[in-house]
Amino acid sequence: MTGPKKISTEAELARTLEHSVLSPAASRADIEAGCELARAYGVRAMVVQPYWLEHAVACLAGSEVLPVSVLAFPHGVSLPSAKAHEAERLAMLGAKEIDMVMNVSALKCRDYDAVASDIAGVVAASGVAVRVKVILETAFLIDDEIADACRIAQDAGAAFVKTSTGFGPGGATCEAVALMRRTVSDFVGVKASGGIRTLDDALKMLVCGADRIGTSATKKILDEMRAR
Amino acid sequence: MTGPKKISTEAELARTLEHSVLSPAASRADIEAGCELARAYGVRAMVVQPYWLEHAVACLAGSEVLPVSVLAFPHGVSLPSAKAHEAERLAMLGAKEIDMVMNVSALKCRDYDAVASDIAGVVAASGVAVRVKVILETAFLIDDEIADACRIAQDAGAAFVKTSTGFGPGGATCEAVALMRRTVSDFVGVKASGGIRTLDDALKMLVCGADRIGTSATKKILDEMRAR
Repeated sequence: MTGPKKISTEAELARTLEHSVLSPAASRADIEAGCELARAYGVRAMVVQPYWLEHAVACLAGSEVLPVSVLAFPHGVSLPSAKAHEAERLAMLGAKEIDMVMNVSALKCRDYDAVASDIAGVVAASGVAVRVKVILETAFLIDDEIADACRIAQDAGAAFVKTSTGFGPGGATCEAVALMRRTVSDFVGVKASGGIRTLDDALKMLVCGADRIGTSATKKILDEMRAR
Repeated sequence: MTGPKKISTEAELARTLEHSVLSPAASRADIEAGCELARAYGVRAMVVQPYWLEHAVACLAGSEVLPVSVLAFPHGVSLPSAKAHEAERLAMLGAKEIDMVMNVSALKCRDYDAVASDIAGVVAASGVAVRVKVILETAFLIDDEIADACRIAQDAGAAFVKTSTGFGPGGATCEAVALMRRTVSDFVGVKASGGIRTLDDALKMLVCGADRIGTSATKKILDEMRAR
């Protein structure tokens, strides 16, 4: 997970992509179409809302695509006990990774103990088989806060730090991704998400240091790679 | 709770207002300023995110302002068990009302049993002393879906139906409020929220049938009423 990776083929790029279907009004058909696309293109993961996780697990069975659920999405200011409770249920339902939103409010207040215990509670409840990504919602944060959040997430057991929900005031930037990459250890991944809609967007994030890309424009990005 | 109410004074208008401080990056100072404003203007309620409920309860102690928390906000597609768990905790922490987001995805799929049991689970977990409002996020819905959602919410024990989160694709409209008012019984309230920023906005919603107004522009609205 260190530094920019060489991406030469569509299949290599696909293995960095997490296909997201996160509209709060998504239908069952939207979820199923997403699963089909994720399987067909061989992406790394498919990310859904908690309500749809069980169905996504079933749709993705037999493929290598990881079923992933968001948690406390997109605001992150649920009760810590509620986050842990839902994480435990999502793990039981078959989530392989959980993308939780950090408590940005607590970070802004420099209540770092609250930020850390919130994350640690989700990591513990998810269990060792489930990797937890922590969404920082970087558009709300200054650089020092991004760096502090990365350190807190890493120490609390996060497997990844992730830039954005896609529903906040801004998406992934190269600057934020690079800062996150140089702050966390080689054992923690960086996921860029929010506003990544083209092949150039995706490649830029990988060059800046992202290990994974979250996007709903999976088809467009991979079709562009194939045509290149 | 039937039809338009006559509002002649600032105090009468204040008793229909719920002051909202819902930014996911709100600071402790923002919550405290909100509580102070809510007390000073004598509004009906103050609405915060779950993480801030306990602090809001403390800040509002001794006043008549009801502490209210949102739940599964703003997407509504959490696991039903997670919604119920958090509702129970919020009631224990002192919430007098809970504004939950309906599962819009399930409604769109016409999985009405899922919508109903999700709401009923929150109502049961909240207990008899806590009134539950169900946010429909009407901008996602056609009229028939709004009417169906109102009936489901009423039958599941909701005390109010509410138009919008303020973070969705649109806010309260007179048409949606009127439709909600004529669909639910006289014992169920209608709360208009989302995009209500002026006195005229607020008065229009009351004329259209709203019993309560959710807004972050409380000071502006009540200052305009005073000046009139």
